[in-house]
Amino acid sequence: MDVSSTQFQTLYQSMLTFVNTCMAGHDPSHNPAHVHRVATLANTILEAEQKRHSPRPLDAAVIKLAALLHDIGDRKYLPQLADPHTHDDIDPKTMVQVALLKHGAPADLAAKVQMVVSHVSYTTECKDPAVVRRLIEEEGYPELAVVQDADRLDAIGAIGIGRTFTFLGAQGKKFAGENGWEMGNCIEHFVDKLERLDGMMKTETGRAMARTRTERLKVFRGWWEEEMYVAAA
Amino acid sequence: MDVSSTQFQTLYQSMLTFVNTCMAGHDPSHNPAHVHRVATLANTILEAEQKRHSPRPLDAAVIKLAALLHDIGDRKYLPQLADPHTHDDIDPKTMVQVALLKHGAPADLAAKVQMVVSHVSYTTECKDPAVVRRLIEEEGYPELAVVQDADRLDAIGAIGIGRTFTFLGAQGKKFAGENGWEMGNCIEHFVDKLERLDGMMKTETGRAMARTRTERLKVFRGWWEEEMYVAAA
Repeated sequence: MDVSSTQFQTLYQSMLTFVNTCMAGHDPSHNPAHVHRVATLANTILEAEQKRHSPRPLDAAVIKLAALLHDIGDRKYLPQLADPHTHDDIDPKTMVQVALLKHGAPADLAAKVQMVVSHVSYTTECKDPAVVRRLIEEEGYPELAVVQDADRLDAIGAIGIGRTFTFLGAQGKKFAGENGWEMGNCIEHFVDKLERLDGMMKTETGRAMARTRTERLKVFRGWWEEEMYVAAA
Repeated sequence: MDVSSTQFQTLYQSMLTFVNTCMAGHDPSHNPAHVHRVATLANTILEAEQKRHSPRPLDAAVIKLAALLHDIGDRKYLPQLADPHTHDDIDPKTMVQVALLKHGAPADLAAKVQMVVSHVSYTTECKDPAVVRRLIEEEGYPELAVVQDADRLDAIGAIGIGRTFTFLGAQGKKFAGENGWEMGNCIEHFVDKLERLDGMMKTETGRAMARTRTERLKVFRGWWEEEMYVAAA
Protein backbone atom coordinates (compact mmCIF):
# COMPACT_ATOMS: atom_id res chain seq x y z
CA MET A 1 0.00 0.00 0.00
CA ASP A 2 1.51 3.30 -1.10
CA VAL A 3 1.70 5.69 1.84
CA SER A 4 0.88 8.66 -0.39
CA SER A 5 -2.35 7.06 -1.62
CA THR A 6 -5.70 8.38 -0.44
CA GLN A 7 -6.61 4.85 0.63
CA PHE A 8 -3.61 4.69 2.99
CA GLN A 9 -4.24 8.19 4.34
CA THR A 10 -7.84 7.26 5.15
CA LEU A 11 -6.76 4.05 6.86
CA TYR A 12 -4.01 5.84 8.82
CA GLN A 13 -6.37 8.59 10.00
CA SER A 14 -8.96 6.10 11.21
CA MET A 15 -6.29 4.05 13.04
CA LEU A 16 -4.98 7.28 14.60
CA THR A 17 -8.45 8.01 15.97
CA PHE A 18 -8.67 4.40 17.20
CA VAL A 19 -5.32 4.70 19.05
CA ASN A 20 -6.17 8.09 20.55
CA THR A 21 -9.47 6.69 21.82
CA CYS A 22 -8.01 3.43 23.17
CA MET A 23 -5.16 5.15 25.01
CA ALA A 24 -6.81 8.43 26.05
CA GLY A 25 -7.08 7.44 29.71
CA HIS A 26 -3.58 5.96 29.99
CA ASP A 27 -0.99 7.57 32.26
CA PRO A 28 1.53 9.75 30.39
CA SER A 29 4.17 7.00 30.24
CA HIS A 30 2.16 5.07 27.62
CA ASN A 31 -0.38 7.51 26.23
CA PRO A 32 -1.10 8.86 22.72
CA ALA A 33 1.73 11.43 23.07
CA HIS A 34 4.22 8.55 23.51
CA VAL A 35 2.83 6.85 20.41
CA HIS A 36 3.07 10.07 18.38
CA ARG A 37 6.73 10.52 19.40
CA VAL A 38 7.48 6.92 18.39
CA ALA A 39 5.71 7.47 15.05
CA THR A 40 7.88 10.55 14.35
CA LEU A 41 11.07 8.76 15.42
CA ALA A 42 10.18 5.77 13.22
CA ASN A 43 9.73 8.12 10.24
CA THR A 44 13.07 9.79 10.98
CA ILE A 45 14.85 6.43 11.14
CA LEU A 46 13.07 5.20 7.99
CA GLU A 47 14.13 8.27 5.99
CA ALA A 48 17.72 8.11 7.23
CA GLU A 49 17.96 4.37 6.52
CA GLN A 50 16.53 4.83 3.03
CA LYS A 51 19.15 7.53 2.35
CA ARG A 52 21.88 5.21 3.61
CA HIS A 53 20.64 2.55 1.15
CA SER A 54 19.68 0.14 3.93
CA PRO A 55 20.44 -3.46 2.87
CA ARG A 56 16.77 -4.44 2.92
CA PRO A 57 13.91 -2.47 1.30
CA LEU A 58 11.60 -1.03 3.94
CA ASP A 59 7.82 -0.85 3.59
CA ALA A 60 6.81 2.62 4.82
CA ALA A 61 3.15 1.66 5.26
CA VAL A 62 4.07 -1.18 7.62
CA ILE A 63 6.42 1.06 9.63
CA LYS A 64 3.89 3.89 9.97
CA LEU A 65 1.06 1.62 11.05
CA ALA A 66 3.15 -0.57 13.34
CA ALA A 67 4.67 2.49 15.08
CA LEU A 68 1.18 3.90 15.59
CA LEU A 69 -0.26 0.62 16.87
CA HIS A 70 2.76 -0.73 18.73
CA ASP A 71 1.24 -0.42 22.22
CA ILE A 72 -2.21 -1.75 21.33
CA GLY A 73 -2.57 -5.06 23.15
CA ASP A 74 0.10 -4.19 25.75
CA ARG A 75 -0.78 -6.49 28.63
CA LYS A 76 0.16 -3.89 31.27
CA TYR A 77 -2.72 -1.70 30.10
CA LEU A 78 -5.19 -4.27 28.87
CA PRO A 79 -7.47 -4.11 31.92
CA GLN A 80 -7.83 -0.35 31.39
CA LEU A 81 -8.59 -0.74 27.71
CA ALA A 82 -11.43 -3.15 27.85
CA ASP A 83 -14.90 -3.03 29.24
CA PRO A 84 -14.75 -5.65 32.03
CA HIS A 85 -17.77 -7.41 30.53
CA THR A 86 -16.15 -7.84 27.12
CA HIS A 87 -12.60 -8.32 28.45
CA ASP A 88 -12.57 -12.04 27.73
CA ASP A 89 -13.22 -11.39 24.05
CA ILE A 90 -10.04 -9.37 23.55
CA ASP A 91 -7.00 -11.29 22.39
CA PRO A 92 -3.88 -9.10 22.66
CA LYS A 93 -2.15 -11.27 20.04
CA THR A 94 -4.60 -10.32 17.29
CA MET A 95 -6.04 -6.97 18.44
CA VAL A 96 -4.04 -4.94 15.92
CA GLN A 97 -4.85 -7.18 12.99
CA VAL A 98 -8.55 -7.29 13.87
CA ALA A 99 -8.70 -3.48 14.18
CA LEU A 100 -6.86 -2.98 10.87
CA LEU A 101 -9.17 -5.37 9.00
CA LYS A 102 -12.20 -3.70 10.57
CA HIS A 103 -10.95 -0.37 9.23
CA GLY A 104 -10.49 -1.72 5.70
CA ALA A 105 -6.78 -2.66 5.58
CA PRO A 106 -5.73 -5.34 3.06
CA ALA A 107 -5.26 -8.73 4.76
CA ASP A 108 -1.53 -9.03 3.99
CA LEU A 109 -0.80 -5.55 5.40
CA ALA A 110 -2.84 -6.25 8.56
CA ALA A 111 -0.99 -9.53 9.11
CA LYS A 112 2.42 -7.95 8.59
CA VAL A 113 1.73 -5.04 10.94
CA GLN A 114 0.46 -7.47 13.59
CA MET A 115 3.64 -9.54 13.27
CA VAL A 116 5.83 -6.45 13.77
CA VAL A 117 3.76 -5.16 16.73
CA SER A 118 3.85 -8.58 18.39
CA HIS A 119 7.66 -8.55 18.38
CA VAL A 120 8.49 -4.98 19.43
CA SER A 121 8.65 -5.84 23.15
CA TYR A 122 12.02 -5.99 24.92
CA THR A 123 10.77 -8.72 27.27
CA THR A 124 9.59 -10.88 24.38
CA GLU A 125 12.91 -10.38 22.59
CA CYS A 126 14.96 -11.28 25.69
CA LYS A 127 13.13 -14.60 25.98
CA ASP A 128 14.38 -15.60 22.52
CA PRO A 129 16.49 -13.02 20.65
CA ALA A 130 16.92 -15.35 17.66
CA VAL A 131 13.24 -15.03 16.76
CA VAL A 132 13.54 -11.25 16.30
CA ARG A 133 16.82 -11.60 14.42
CA ARG A 134 15.31 -14.12 12.00
CA LEU A 135 12.19 -12.01 11.43
CA ILE A 136 14.32 -8.98 10.53
CA GLU A 137 17.06 -10.67 8.54
CA GLU A 138 15.45 -13.67 6.91
CA GLU A 139 11.70 -13.69 7.12
CA GLY A 140 10.85 -10.38 5.49
CA TYR A 141 10.17 -8.08 8.45
CA PRO A 142 13.04 -5.53 8.35
CA GLU A 143 10.45 -2.90 9.42
CA LEU A 144 10.53 -4.45 12.92
CA ALA A 145 14.07 -3.06 13.34
CA VAL A 146 12.86 0.50 12.71
CA VAL A 147 9.80 0.33 14.99
CA GLN A 148 11.75 -1.35 17.80
CA ASP A 149 14.48 1.29 17.63
CA ALA A 150 11.95 4.15 17.64
CA ASP A 151 10.14 2.73 20.67
CA ARG A 152 13.44 2.18 22.50
CA LEU A 153 14.64 5.72 21.81
CA ASP A 154 11.54 6.99 23.63
CA ALA A 155 12.44 4.73 26.58
CA ILE A 156 15.86 6.32 27.18
CA GLY A 157 17.29 9.82 27.67
CA ALA A 158 15.39 12.49 29.58
CA ILE A 159 12.06 11.32 28.15
CA GLY A 160 12.81 7.75 29.23
CA ILE A 161 13.65 8.97 32.73
CA GLY A 162 10.38 10.91 32.88
CA ARG A 163 8.38 7.94 31.58
CA THR A 164 9.95 5.50 34.06
CA PHE A 165 9.09 7.61 37.11
CA THR A 166 5.64 8.42 35.70
CA PHE A 167 4.98 4.70 35.26
CA LEU A 168 6.21 4.08 38.82
CA GLY A 169 3.72 6.62 40.16
CA ALA A 170 0.82 5.42 38.03
CA GLN A 171 1.30 1.66 37.90
CA GLY A 172 4.37 0.85 39.98
CA LYS A 173 2.46 -0.18 43.08
CA LYS A 174 1.40 -3.31 41.15
CA PHE A 175 5.02 -4.09 40.28
CA ALA A 176 6.65 -3.06 43.57
CA GLY A 177 9.97 -4.83 44.11
CA GLU A 178 11.31 -6.39 47.28
CA ASN A 179 11.95 -2.90 48.68
CA GLY A 180 8.31 -1.97 48.15
CA TRP A 181 6.94 0.93 46.09
CA GLU A 182 10.06 3.11 45.96
CA MET A 183 11.80 5.32 43.41
CA GLY A 184 14.88 3.11 43.66
CA ASN A 185 12.94 0.60 41.54
CA CYS A 186 13.32 3.04 38.63
CA ILE A 187 17.09 3.23 39.07
CA GLU A 188 17.25 -0.58 39.09
CA HIS A 189 15.21 -0.53 35.88
CA PHE A 190 17.79 1.81 34.30
CA VAL A 191 20.56 -0.68 35.07
CA ASP A 192 18.61 -3.85 34.31
CA LYS A 193 17.07 -2.68 31.05
CA LEU A 194 17.30 0.92 29.84
CA GLU A 195 21.10 1.25 29.86
CA ARG A 196 21.31 -2.00 27.86
CA LEU A 197 18.95 -0.95 25.09
CA ASP A 198 21.58 0.81 23.01
CA GLY A 199 23.43 -2.49 22.61
CA MET A 200 20.21 -3.96 21.15
CA MET A 201 19.47 -1.25 18.59
CA LYS A 202 18.95 -2.71 15.13
CA THR A 203 19.53 0.20 12.73
CA GLU A 204 22.63 2.36 12.25
CA THR A 205 20.48 5.49 12.65
CA GLY A 206 18.83 4.28 15.85
CA ARG A 207 22.14 3.19 17.33
CA ALA A 208 23.69 6.61 16.74
CA MET A 209 20.67 8.37 18.30
CA ALA A 210 20.69 6.04 21.30
CA ARG A 211 24.28 6.85 22.27
CA THR A 212 23.64 10.35 23.66
CA ARG A 213 20.42 9.30 25.41
CA THR A 214 22.11 6.35 27.10
CA GLU A 215 24.84 8.69 28.31
CA ARG A 216 22.09 10.88 29.83
CA LEU A 217 20.68 7.92 31.75
CA LYS A 218 24.11 7.26 33.24
CA VAL A 219 24.74 10.91 34.13
CA PHE A 220 21.32 11.06 35.81
CA ARG A 221 22.06 7.87 37.77
CA GLY A 222 25.34 9.41 38.97
CA TRP A 223 23.46 12.46 40.27
CA TRP A 224 20.89 10.19 41.90
CA GLU A 225 23.48 8.12 43.72
CA GLU A 226 25.28 11.20 45.00
CA GLU A 227 22.05 12.77 46.30
CA MET A 228 20.88 9.52 47.89
CA TYR A 229 24.25 9.14 49.60
CA VAL A 230 23.96 12.62 51.11
CA ALA A 231 20.41 11.92 52.32
CA ALA A 232 21.06 8.43 53.69
CA ALA A 233 20.21 8.19 57.37
CA MET B 1 13.90 19.25 75.28
CA ASP B 2 17.42 17.87 74.97
CA VAL B 3 17.67 15.65 71.89
CA SER B 4 20.02 13.28 73.67
CA SER B 5 17.56 12.69 76.52
CA THR B 6 15.74 9.38 76.82
CA GLN B 7 12.47 11.29 76.91
CA PHE B 8 13.16 12.89 73.51
CA GLN B 9 14.34 9.59 72.01
CA THR B 10 11.12 7.90 73.12
CA LEU B 11 9.00 10.72 71.69
CA TYR B 12 10.95 10.72 68.41
CA GLN B 13 10.64 6.95 68.00
CA SER B 14 6.90 7.01 68.55
CA MET B 15 6.47 9.92 66.11
CA LEU B 16 8.59 7.99 63.59
CA THR B 17 6.22 5.04 63.87
CA PHE B 18 3.26 7.43 63.53
CA VAL B 19 4.71 8.96 60.34
CA ASN B 20 5.61 5.60 58.82
CA THR B 21 2.07 4.37 59.48
CA CYS B 22 0.33 7.51 58.21
CA MET B 23 2.34 7.65 55.00
CA ALA B 24 2.88 3.95 54.28
CA GLY B 25 0.41 3.89 51.38
CA HIS B 26 1.56 7.15 49.78
CA ASP B 27 3.13 7.15 46.35
CA PRO B 28 6.95 7.40 46.42
CA SER B 29 6.97 11.17 45.83
CA HIS B 30 5.71 11.83 49.36
CA ASN B 31 6.27 8.63 51.32
CA PRO B 32 8.28 7.78 54.47
CA ALA B 33 11.52 7.52 52.41
CA HIS B 34 11.08 11.20 51.38
CA VAL B 35 10.57 12.18 55.02
CA HIS B 36 13.66 10.24 56.11
CA ARG B 37 15.77 12.00 53.47
CA VAL B 38 14.47 15.38 54.63
CA ALA B 39 15.25 14.44 58.25
CA THR B 40 18.85 13.59 57.31
CA LEU B 41 19.26 16.75 55.23
CA ALA B 42 17.85 18.86 58.08
CA ASN B 43 20.40 17.31 60.46
CA THR B 44 23.21 17.98 57.99
CA ILE B 45 22.16 21.63 57.62
CA LEU B 46 21.72 22.01 61.38
CA GLU B 47 25.22 20.70 62.10
CA ALA B 48 26.83 22.85 59.40
CA GLU B 49 24.96 25.97 60.55
CA GLN B 50 25.97 25.34 64.16
CA LYS B 51 29.62 25.04 63.07
CA ARG B 52 29.29 28.27 61.10
CA HIS B 53 28.00 30.00 64.26
CA SER B 54 24.60 30.70 62.74
CA PRO B 55 23.30 34.10 63.90
CA ARG B 56 20.36 32.55 65.76
CA PRO B 57 20.53 29.58 68.14
CA LEU B 58 18.75 26.55 66.68
CA ASP B 59 16.65 24.10 68.70
CA ALA B 60 17.62 20.63 67.49
CA ALA B 61 14.50 19.00 68.95
CA VAL B 62 12.23 21.33 66.98
CA ILE B 63 14.18 20.72 63.76
CA LYS B 64 14.20 16.94 64.13
CA LEU B 65 10.49 16.70 64.89
CA ALA B 66 9.40 19.27 62.31
CA ALA B 67 11.46 17.58 59.57
CA LEU B 68 9.92 14.24 60.49
CA LEU B 69 6.37 15.61 60.61
CA HIS B 70 6.55 18.21 57.84
CA ASP B 71 4.19 16.39 55.45
CA ILE B 72 1.59 15.40 58.04
CA GLY B 73 -1.54 17.37 57.20
CA ASP B 74 -0.52 17.91 53.55
CA ARG B 75 -3.84 18.61 51.85
CA LYS B 76 -2.81 16.75 48.67
CA TYR B 77 -2.72 13.50 50.62
CA LEU B 78 -5.34 14.12 53.28
CA PRO B 79 -8.08 12.03 51.64
CA GLN B 80 -5.71 9.03 51.61
CA LEU B 81 -4.75 9.51 55.24
CA ALA B 82 -8.11 9.54 56.82
CA ASP B 83 -10.84 7.02 57.17
CA PRO B 84 -13.66 8.60 55.12
CA HIS B 85 -15.96 8.33 58.13
CA THR B 86 -13.64 10.28 60.42
CA HIS B 87 -12.33 12.63 57.74
CA ASP B 88 -14.30 15.62 58.98
CA ASP B 89 -12.64 15.35 62.38
CA ILE B 90 -9.13 15.91 61.02
CA ASP B 91 -7.89 19.48 60.99
CA PRO B 92 -4.68 19.71 58.93
CA LYS B 93 -3.75 22.91 60.79
CA THR B 94 -3.42 21.14 64.13
CA MET B 95 -2.76 17.49 63.23
CA VAL B 96 0.92 17.65 64.14
CA GLN B 97 0.37 19.38 67.47
CA VAL B 98 -2.44 16.98 68.40
CA ALA B 99 -0.30 13.94 67.54
CA LEU B 100 2.70 15.29 69.48
CA LEU B 101 0.61 15.99 72.59
CA LYS B 102 -0.98 12.55 72.32
CA HIS B 103 2.51 11.03 72.33
CA GLY B 104 3.58 12.97 75.42
CA ALA B 105 5.38 16.03 73.99
CA PRO B 106 5.53 19.16 76.19
CA ALA B 107 2.94 21.73 75.09
CA ASP B 108 5.47 24.42 74.09
CA LEU B 109 7.45 21.98 71.91
CA ALA B 110 4.26 20.69 70.23
CA ALA B 111 3.12 24.25 69.48
CA LYS B 112 6.51 25.26 68.08
CA VAL B 113 6.80 22.20 65.84
CA GLN B 114 3.26 22.81 64.55
CA MET B 115 4.13 26.42 63.71
CA VAL B 116 7.21 25.34 61.75
CA VAL B 117 5.36 22.55 59.90
CA SER B 118 2.51 24.91 59.01
CA HIS B 119 4.94 27.27 57.26
CA VAL B 120 7.21 24.88 55.34
CA SER B 121 5.06 24.98 52.18
CA TYR B 122 6.30 26.88 49.12
CA THR B 123 2.72 27.76 48.12
CA THR B 124 1.94 29.19 51.56
CA GLU B 125 5.17 31.19 51.50
CA CYS B 126 4.47 32.61 48.02
CA LYS B 127 1.13 33.94 49.19
CA ASP B 128 2.87 36.09 51.80
CA PRO B 129 6.68 35.77 52.00
CA ALA B 130 6.88 38.34 54.81
CA VAL B 131 5.15 35.96 57.24
CA VAL B 132 7.91 33.36 56.83
CA ARG B 133 10.64 36.01 57.03
CA ARG B 134 9.22 37.41 60.27
CA LEU B 135 8.83 33.95 61.82
CA ILE B 136 12.49 33.13 61.10
CA GLU B 137 14.09 36.49 61.86
CA GLU B 138 11.93 38.05 64.54
CA GLU B 139 9.45 35.68 66.08
CA GLY B 140 11.75 32.93 67.31
CA TYR B 141 11.37 30.23 64.66
CA PRO B 142 14.82 30.09 62.97
CA GLU B 143 14.33 26.30 62.77
CA LEU B 144 11.82 26.91 59.97
CA ALA B 145 14.72 27.99 57.74
CA VAL B 146 16.47 24.63 58.22
CA VAL B 147 13.40 22.45 57.68
CA GLN B 148 12.27 24.44 54.62
CA ASP B 149 15.73 24.17 53.05
CA ALA B 150 15.91 20.41 53.71
CA ASP B 151 12.48 19.83 52.15
CA ARG B 152 13.38 22.00 49.15
CA LEU B 153 16.66 20.17 48.57
CA ASP B 154 14.67 16.94 48.18
CA ALA B 155 12.46 18.72 45.60
CA ILE B 156 15.34 19.52 43.23
CA GLY B 157 18.20 17.67 41.54
CA ALA B 158 17.79 14.12 40.29
CA ILE B 159 15.61 13.18 43.26
CA GLY B 160 13.35 16.18 42.61
CA ILE B 161 13.05 15.16 38.95
CA GLY B 162 12.12 11.62 39.98
CA ARG B 163 9.61 12.86 42.55
CA THR B 164 7.93 15.25 40.11
CA PHE B 165 7.30 12.57 37.48
CA THR B 166 6.28 10.04 40.14
CA PHE B 167 3.74 12.54 41.49
CA LEU B 168 2.49 13.15 37.93
CA GLY B 169 1.89 9.42 37.47
CA ALA B 170 0.29 8.90 40.87
CA GLN B 171 -1.70 12.09 41.40
CA GLY B 172 -1.23 14.24 38.32
CA LYS B 173 -4.51 13.28 36.69
CA LYS B 174 -6.24 15.33 39.40
CA PHE B 175 -4.04 18.35 38.65
CA ALA B 176 -3.89 18.01 34.85
CA GLY B 177 -3.17 21.35 33.16
CA GLU B 178 -4.73 22.81 30.05
CA ASN B 179 -2.77 20.31 27.93
CA GLY B 180 -4.25 17.41 29.90
CA TRP B 181 -2.37 14.72 31.82
CA GLU B 182 1.02 15.03 30.12
CA MET B 183 4.69 14.88 31.16
CA GLY B 184 5.13 18.45 29.90
CA ASN B 185 3.31 19.53 33.08
CA CYS B 186 6.42 18.42 35.01
CA ILE B 187 8.72 20.54 32.87
CA GLU B 188 6.44 23.55 33.44
CA HIS B 189 6.66 22.80 37.16
CA PHE B 190 10.48 22.91 36.93
CA VAL B 191 10.31 26.40 35.42
CA ASP B 192 7.46 27.72 37.55
CA LYS B 193 8.72 26.44 40.89
CA LEU B 194 11.66 24.06 41.20
CA GLU B 195 14.26 26.18 39.39
CA ARG B 196 13.27 29.13 41.60
CA LEU B 197 13.73 27.36 44.90
CA ASP B 198 17.44 28.01 45.19
CA GLY B 199 16.72 31.75 45.28
CA MET B 200 14.45 31.12 48.28
CA MET B 201 16.85 29.04 50.38
CA LYS B 202 17.21 30.44 53.88
CA THR B 203 20.49 29.02 55.19
CA GLU B 204 24.01 29.39 53.79
CA THR B 205 24.42 25.60 53.88
CA GLY B 206 21.16 24.93 52.08
CA ARG B 207 21.89 27.56 49.45
CA ALA B 208 25.27 26.02 48.64
CA MET B 209 23.75 22.53 48.38
CA ALA B 210 20.92 23.78 46.16
CA ARG B 211 23.25 25.24 43.54
CA THR B 212 24.39 21.93 42.00
CA ARG B 213 20.91 20.42 42.15
CA THR B 214 19.35 23.42 40.42
CA GLU B 215 21.97 23.14 37.69
CA ARG B 216 20.92 19.49 37.25
CA LEU B 217 17.29 20.52 36.76
CA LYS B 218 18.37 22.89 33.99
CA VAL B 219 20.62 20.34 32.29
CA PHE B 220 17.77 17.82 32.36
CA ARG B 221 15.35 20.35 30.89
CA GLY B 222 17.84 21.01 28.06
CA TRP B 223 17.95 17.29 27.28
CA TRP B 224 14.15 17.12 27.43
CA GLU B 225 13.66 20.00 25.03
CA GLU B 226 16.13 18.56 22.52
CA GLU B 227 14.48 15.11 22.61
CA MET B 228 10.98 16.58 22.32
CA TYR B 229 12.09 18.67 19.36
CA VAL B 230 13.37 15.56 17.56
CA ALA B 231 10.14 13.67 18.28
CA ALA B 232 7.73 16.48 17.41
CA ALA B 233 5.36 15.51 14.62
